[in-house]
Amino acid sequence: MSAPKKSPNSLFLTRENMVLATDLYQLTMMAAYLEFEMSEPATFELFVRRLPRHRAFLVSAGLEQCIQYLSELTFDGDDIDFLRAHEVFANISGRFFERLRAWKFSGNVAGIPEGVPFFPNEAILQIRAPLFEAQLIETYLLSTINYQVSVASKAARVAMAAGDRTCVDFGSRRAHGPQAGVYAARASYIGGMVATSNLLAGKLCGIPVTGTAAHAFTMACPSEDEAFRRYHAAFPDHTTLLIDTYDTLRGAVRATHISGELKGVRLDSGDLAQLSKEVRLILDAEGRDSTRIVASGDLNEYKIRALLDEGAKIDAFGVGTEMVTSKDHPALGGVYKLVSRQVAGVEQAAMKLSPGKATYPGIKQFWRERDDVGRCVRDVMQLASTGAPSPRATPLLVPIFERGECVYSLPDITATRARCQTEIASLPESLLTIEGFGEYPVEVGADVSELMVRLRAEVGE
Amino acid sequence: MSAPKKSPNSLFLTRENMVLATDLYQLTMMAAYLEFEMSEPATFELFVRRLPRHRAFLVSAGLEQCIQYLSELTFDGDDIDFLRAHEVFANISGRFFERLRAWKFSGNVAGIPEGVPFFPNEAILQIRAPLFEAQLIETYLLSTINYQVSVASKAARVAMAAGDRTCVDFGSRRAHGPQAGVYAARASYIGGMVATSNLLAGKLCGIPVTGTAAHAFTMACPSEDEAFRRYHAAFPDHTTLLIDTYDTLRGAVRATHISGELKGVRLDSGDLAQLSKEVRLILDAEGRDSTRIVASGDLNEYKIRALLDEGAKIDAFGVGTEMVTSKDHPALGGVYKLVSRQVAGVEQAAMKLSPGKATYPGIKQFWRERDDVGRCVRDVMQLASTGAPSPRATPLLVPIFERGECVYSLPDITATRARCQTEIASLPESLLTIEGFGEYPVEVGADVSELMVRLRAEVGE
Repeated sequence: MSAPKKSPNSLFLTRENMVLATDLYQLTMMAAYLEFEMSEPATFELFVRRLPRHRAFLVSAGLEQCIQYLSELTFDGDDIDFLRAHEVFANISGRFFERLRAWKFSGNVAGIPEGVPFFPNEAILQIRAPLFEAQLIETYLLSTINYQVSVASKAARVAMAAGDRTCVDFGSRRAHGPQAGVYAARASYIGGMVATSNLLAGKLCGIPVTGTAAHAFTMACPSEDEAFRRYHAAFPDHTTLLIDTYDTLRGAVRATHISGELKGVRLDSGDLAQLSKEVRLILDAEGRDSTRIVASGDLNEYKIRALLDEGAKIDAFGVGTEMVTSKDHPALGGVYKLVSRQVAGVEQAAMKLSPGKATYPGIKQFWRERDDVGRCVRDVMQLASTGAPSPRATPLLVPIFERGECVYSLPDITATRARCQTEIASLPESLLTIEGFGEYPVEVGADVSELMVRLRAEVGE
Repeated sequence: MSAPKKSPNSLFLTRENMVLATDLYQLTMMAAYLEFEMSEPATFELFVRRLPRHRAFLVSAGLEQCIQYLSELTFDGDDIDFLRAHEVFANISGRFFERLRAWKFSGNVAGIPEGVPFFPNEAILQIRAPLFEAQLIETYLLSTINYQVSVASKAARVAMAAGDRTCVDFGSRRAHGPQAGVYAARASYIGGMVATSNLLAGKLCGIPVTGTAAHAFTMACPSEDEAFRRYHAAFPDHTTLLIDTYDTLRGAVRATHISGELKGVRLDSGDLAQLSKEVRLILDAEGRDSTRIVASGDLNEYKIRALLDEGAKIDAFGVGTEMVTSKDHPALGGVYKLVSRQVAGVEQAAMKLSPGKATYPGIKQFWRERDDVGRCVRDVMQLASTGAPSPRATPLLVPIFERGECVYSLPDITATRARCQTEIASLPESLLTIEGFGEYPVEVGADVSELMVRLRAEVGE
């Protein structure tokens, strides 16, 4: 029995090391910018090129974690030593590392508040900062936004399918590592879950935490009857019994034997529609009409709708794997692109021309227009300098940072969740189906179109 | 300009809060175990029920982070206050919270070392601990193992498709949050990448970090020629130029204009097979035969093989999104199941019978048998008490913790990566294709089969 030679590494992200959670090329480009005194400000927009299949809209999420990151980002001596030791920096002068040592984010940021639906080519974040700074932060912002938007958007679909039934996040064990489970709990709450099973998410975000029981508990007791009795004795007012360990219907009968209030039973396998109807009958026959039926087991929006279409007697859904991995579209392709930069004091719009990867140039604002009853009608992409396309249009991007200082008042997460529900309900009805057949109009303003024509001509490529 | 009212939350996992990165029901079951003095030891196995489609094997990864977790897990006062305030614990006596306060993991753990291929129903971790303890850790262990195994297994396929070409992890921006990017860099290195672009993974894990340049750099310079000149001036020995910002072939010609050594060029869009051949001709015509061609852009094992089949002149692949999200199978369904427990001092095997979710009962060992030249022939699942099925069989599970103390000497990650390559090469050749048509035999020992028959009869269900 010998002690481990190497102490095991947690791979935790911390305030101190998060600055290195980026790609090496961001740092090499920064060094080159400094070397060639390319210090003028530039604007980058973080956006999604196209909707994932079967999504009619995306839901903004992750802004709070981006704010934390930008507010607290610094290089400490350790980070700088690590970079300096990399062979790629062999010819880079000490000035670069000195600059890192003193660095703090000094830029402006605008963003779409969390919980707001948005569409392709609309910037969810817009960063205005010296190239040196704007480049560094790309990777972290993308991974934070890409993931939380994926999950919030998927959760909105799940909630849509469930209608007035409640849905809870049960997905931590299938998320991409333990931090992803916390992110997923938060984002799925914004998107429409009513609670999570993840305690840490509950503690850190202040969202409700709920749970039932696992098969192991039943298996660890002398009998299923005894398992139910014990669990209920420990949690008389909060017991949802898992009844499928041996046989769901026999489990349902046994659940009715407990004395006192039974909050719920959970089905986790088999034909959930059929079983739920039979379990409902068993419960009702024993006067347990207030006992709720919870269902779980690889559920997604399609399965939930199919269950409800079949008349399943399910009151609440536990949703895990499919939601926290956004399984039918596990990678949101958010990108972070240079749209404008100052050259010798003059602003110049920038545009990427690579096949299939062209971008809309210029510093933009995205305007949402609503009809008289508040339903969204269209969005308009215009240069920010152009102003509102109509008096009733409201801007999606709001100020988040000014000169490196956060100027945004973060709402409470329950307010964000409520806003999300209201905003989704105000989308055109054709978007409010899980098939996602509707297409919301995002119009490209004449100013942006003209700029594109001019830039293509200038590049002459 | 007002300061934010609420300070933004990082959602970071830390040594201090990781104990809450679990599902509420683990804690409620723990309270019930304590209440009913169910303190005898139990054994849980963490395994995968079936292979993802198109995977012929899985690669073990994530053990180091599980060791760190189990070594350092404690409840602090804050955690306990948070739990105590949850309404579900209203009827739970203070004894439970006192127990948490003093708690440290005291169990035994066996596991499959990292970098070793394994198959369905083989326990990657086997935990022997009082139910109270074994239950708590389920969620965190699952999310850690599920994700790292997914990525290591996918990376092994990517490396297999690339053959003698090198592959690098470029995926951080599409990983499920910033911590997932670090996990992915580590797991994909074990599975066969030669490096990552993620600096933090490089620092924390000691794996090589490489990079090229981004479109933004080219766009921020007065011209592509000037961008290439500047980047090369800053990094004369380590420049890989991204040449597709405007037009790949024109970019290739411009790349040849730089004076001095050019390490590589990167293609990131268009028909990579065709472009790589034309770019190779352009480079060679200018005597740049040592300049390597790197390709990137939503690559996966199938696309890499198709490129090589088309005769693409690509020397290295940057692989991102598809690998770090294991996009074709983004959620590995690892589960953690009770297989045995002591009751009044007598060991009793446990077995779950739910439809499609039945488990193999008993505390098992998994034996790998090889032929004379060291090629794997079959694995055998037997009760651990039975001993080796043949003299040449070697056990997959090795001791990791004994009575709460780590007894495992963690290998260096480069040794783990080397082991992975050797072990994969020793699998039957029918498994070493990206189609994954081969099926490796994992035989269920007669002892396990007999136990199953007996248990089904006993439960009488």
